[in-house]
Parts: sequence; C-alpha cells; structure tokens
Amino acid sequence: MQAVVLKNGALHCQDIAKPLAAAGEALIHLRLAGICATDLELVKGYAGFTGVLGHEFVGEVVAVDKPHQHWLHQRVVGSINLGCRQCLVCLNDGPEHCPNRKVLGIRGQQGVFADYFTLPVTNLYAVPDSITDETAVFAEPLAAALRVVKQLQAVSVANIAVIGPGRLGLLIAKVLAVAGYQVQVLGRSAKSLVLPKQWQLNTDLIDKVADNQFDCVVDASGQADGFRQALRIIRPRGILILKSTFAAAEPVDLSKIVVAELQVMGSRCGSFADALALMTQQVIPFETLIDARYALCDGEAALAFASRPGVRKVLLRP
Amino acid sequence: MQAVVLKNGALHCQDIAKPLAAAGEALIHLRLAGICATDLELVKGYAGFTGVLGHEFVGEVVAVDKPHQHWLHQRVVGSINLGCRQCLVCLNDGPEHCPNRKVLGIRGQQGVFADYFTLPVTNLYAVPDSITDETAVFAEPLAAALRVVKQLQAVSVANIAVIGPGRLGLLIAKVLAVAGYQVQVLGRSAKSLVLPKQWQLNTDLIDKVADNQFDCVVDASGQADGFRQALRIIRPRGILILKSTFAAAEPVDLSKIVVAELQVMGSRCGSFADALALMTQQVIPFETLIDARYALCDGEAALAFASRPGVRKVLLRP
Repeated sequence: MQAVVLKNGALHCQDIAKPLAAAGEALIHLRLAGICATDLELVKGYAGFTGVLGHEFVGEVVAVDKPHQHWLHQRVVGSINLGCRQCLVCLNDGPEHCPNRKVLGIRGQQGVFADYFTLPVTNLYAVPDSITDETAVFAEPLAAALRVVKQLQAVSVANIAVIGPGRLGLLIAKVLAVAGYQVQVLGRSAKSLVLPKQWQLNTDLIDKVADNQFDCVVDASGQADGFRQALRIIRPRGILILKSTFAAAEPVDLSKIVVAELQVMGSRCGSFADALALMTQQVIPFETLIDARYALCDGEAALAFASRPGVRKVLLRP
Repeated sequence: MQAVVLKNGALHCQDIAKPLAAAGEALIHLRLAGICATDLELVKGYAGFTGVLGHEFVGEVVAVDKPHQHWLHQRVVGSINLGCRQCLVCLNDGPEHCPNRKVLGIRGQQGVFADYFTLPVTNLYAVPDSITDETAVFAEPLAAALRVVKQLQAVSVANIAVIGPGRLGLLIAKVLAVAGYQVQVLGRSAKSLVLPKQWQLNTDLIDKVADNQFDCVVDASGQADGFRQALRIIRPRGILILKSTFAAAEPVDLSKIVVAELQVMGSRCGSFADALALMTQQVIPFETLIDARYALCDGEAALAFASRPGVRKVLLRP
C-alpha cells in the first residue's frame, strides 16, 4: 500500500506493508485525510517522530475482530490519543494526558496518510450519513476548537478575541460565536481577514486594537508575536487561552501575567462526539477552508503547499 | 526629614521637605519599614521610578483632616494601590488593576522609606495592640501570600510545591500549610531549606523532584530557572501560580502549557484585613525572617545587604 513516511527529516511516498489489526483494533481504509500544522512541525523535527504521518481522517472500517463486528463497513473518524488505560492519569483525566500514551501519527503510532491504518475501536466514532467526507475530515480540529468553549463554561466572559485567522483560529471563533459569545477575529493583514468576514465574524487588524480590551483572548497564531499581542490586548484579570505553541527561540515578557493577575489556560484536544453533533447542524462552511486536494502519492507536494502562508486546509485522498 | 531617594539609578539618603496630607489623606510617621524584592528591582531600573522608595510599613497617623480624626494616633499598615476610584476597573475589580493607579513607592506615589509619608485613609488598616511592629511590617507580603490561598479556593488541589524558599515563598508555603494543604518547599541548596524546616514545612532539593509530581506549583523564585522547574514538576492539567516575575532576557519553552493543558495564574496583592487577622493568631514566626535592621539613613547599605543571596527580610527604622 502507499503511505507518506517521515524518516530522517525527509518525507517520501512509498510502498509499505499493509498493517494488521490486533485484538480490539480496527483496520481502516482511508477515505480522506487533512494536513495539520502539527504535521508541518513534525517534518521540521518536532517530537522526533519517524513513520507514517497524519492524524486527521475519515475512513471506513474494513477489518475488525469478532467482538467488534458492528464496526465493519462503518464510516468513522477517530480520536488520536491512545492511553495505557491503566495509570491514574488515564483513569482520572483520560488518555490525552497519559505519560505512556501513543498519539496517532505523532508519537509511537503509525498515522493515517496511508491507504490503510489501524486504531483501537475505543477511539472510533461513527459518522452520520448527513455528514460528507469533506466535512467529517474536520472532526479533529473542530473537537479541538470546541475544547475552548468547554473550558470557558465555568467562567464569566463577555468579549473574546481570537488571534490568528488560520484554519484552527477560524473554527474556534465560529464555535464561540455559535455558543453566543461576542467574538473578534484578529489578523496581521487585511487579506487574512477576508474569509473570517465571509463567515460573518467580526474582524480587525491586530495592530489597531488598543491595550487591555478583551476579557478573553485565544492565541491560535502559533507565533511568539501572537502571544505578545495576546498579552497586550487582554484586560487585567482576563483569561488567555493558548491553543498553539511556538518554538521557544525568543524571550517573551511574562510580567503582565503576574501584574494583571491573568489566567492562562492551555487547550488541546476536545470531544469528537460534540464535533459530530455540531457538524449535523451544518452551521460551519467547512468547504471554504479547503485550499487544495492532493493524491496521497503527492504527499510531499501537498505538505509543501500547506506550509505556505495563508493556506488553510489541504486534503489528501488515496 | 530624612528619606531614601532613588534618582537616576542612584540611591541616597537625603533631607527633603515633609509632605503635606491632602483632603482624605493621612500624614504617617514611619515606625518600621521592610525592604522587598520589588525595591531591589526598582533600583535596577524596573518601572523607571524616581522618588522615595518603599511600600512595606507600619506607622502612626500624626495628621489627618477633620472627617477622619478617628485615625489620629492610630498605629496603621496600608495597602499600596491608589486607584482613580472612577473607572470601570476600579469599580469592578478594585484599585489593584486601575490603569491610572499610583502605587506607593513604586509608581507615581512617594514611598515609605522616610520619616513621614502620606496615604489615603481608605488604604489604612488599624493594627491591633497584640501585634508588634516587627510583625505588622509583614502585613503587605503576608497579604500577598494569602492571595494564593484565595485563588485556590475555587479549585481542587491536594499537593502543592512552592519553589523559592525566600521571604515570600516561605510565607506562601506557611499560609498554605495553615490552610490545610500538603505543601513542599523546594530550593536549590540545602542551606536555603534550613529555615523552612525550622518552620515545620516539608522540604526538598528541587533537582531531586521527579517530573509531573504536583497538582499545583507556586513559583516564588523570581528566576527563569524556577519557572522552568515549575513547568517540569507540575502534573498535566495542574495549576501553576506565578507569584514573581523574572526579566524576560531568555526564552522559556511554554509548549507544556498547551500540551498538558496547564492553568497558569498570576497572583499579586491580597487582603490586609485577612493578613492582620492571621497575625493575631501568632502561628507564623515572622521574627526568624529578619536578617538585619538598619537606620533609615543607612538605606543604601541596607538595600545592598538585602540583595545578597539567601538574605530574607531587612528592616529600616527612622
């Protein structure tokens, strides 16, 4: 079978052996995969991953053991963390924070940029017929966006800024707007704000925003400058949600966190069930996020295109 | 009158005019002042302050306007933020976060390292007779320590590490222990842990602590390395309280905040009323924090001594 393999910092589409599903695992045939910023980071060497890349997918179960036959031929998406299911962290907090976890296409588990791949059935979610492949493939980033809504449920927040109008920033802004928050998408160029406006979101150039304006700021920029701007525009005692990290190559002045008593919350994976439920409501125009579609064998070119500034989602099909 | 004045980066004890109390202000005669890490930072140029230094004090009201005569001859301590009392921040969050605030001896308001100084009566707290001057002078740092207890009230936390066994770290660890938490004071040298042990606190060398151990870590180290260690020893979804900042001279890898979904909370000033109430219970041996006493006129030498590694509290008396 064909697979996009990362090895020694180089990416190649190559022919490898079809994997075998162990007990409790499903063998999945890829229908559509999405390229994520994390994939681009992995290619640069982050986390030292070697193997088949990819973790955003929609696929079809083509083999599974006897006790799980009801999954056979189901169209599925899947959560990406594989915990040991035995440690206290798994039992209390779930697999996302297990110290021994594998992560699909990121850590110790072969990814989805391949004709076939395996995943434990406990990670699978059946996709309702009303959701197309080109929507379902956004389940993982939409779940990550919904995590922000969940984290804000316990606190009182009126106006929210989302820094970074990329694929994840847009999804976060939209789910916050759908949840009833007053949201502003902030970007560095007028061009980057065209799609947010199409999505009927309020927008502004970040340099035009005055200091200390927002109750809550979500930094989805993935850049040190975005984090700096987040610290600038948040009000005292505000909530800053970090949705993406940046390479720790330059110092950032953190003193406002103490002086203004900010609350900074890291935010990672969210609920696939909630994401699929929201998808059936068809309030998010996912198709406008798709900038290109490539064949799996053109994975190298697809990742190169996905890394261009301003490009949002690039899909791979087998 | 004598005053310790910071001007153009140099510190001098000099004779200056006695200040006049405006309407709503008290003229206070200094009884005892404490030197704080912030004073040492101000001397290095932080915040560009010029004028009389100092904000930790116990004093006696010697003049006040007619409507506030009940303050006359009272022994007092005082909160240090002077808000405009008109903006939304003052009305909602209090003077600590007012964008136009003055801060005693730190920003736009002459400090307490002087025979006399003024403060609005709304900032004053009467000191009960059972509290000595050498205890009362710790009201401001004790209030700051109690702020951590208050911030943790809303969350569920079992074991807490306090990084930095200095004057503030010790007070934080002690008030957390008094509040019933399981607390560990972490320092870089065995010598720095002698006093924490005397205070019956659990201690450990920070390098000996394994990764991901603590539900909550309070960083009171004032150093980038302390913050790095805090990120290392905190468990996924843990709470990291930043009690002191460090100069943003070197990059710190913040990716664990996102990956482990940490909650980082800045923590600054606390309740003087709560601090005085705790002082009357006499559970904290403040006198063991005092490493030296200097006369006001020896302020330069006192600040130089206070900046030595391992020195905790240095007092100034008029």
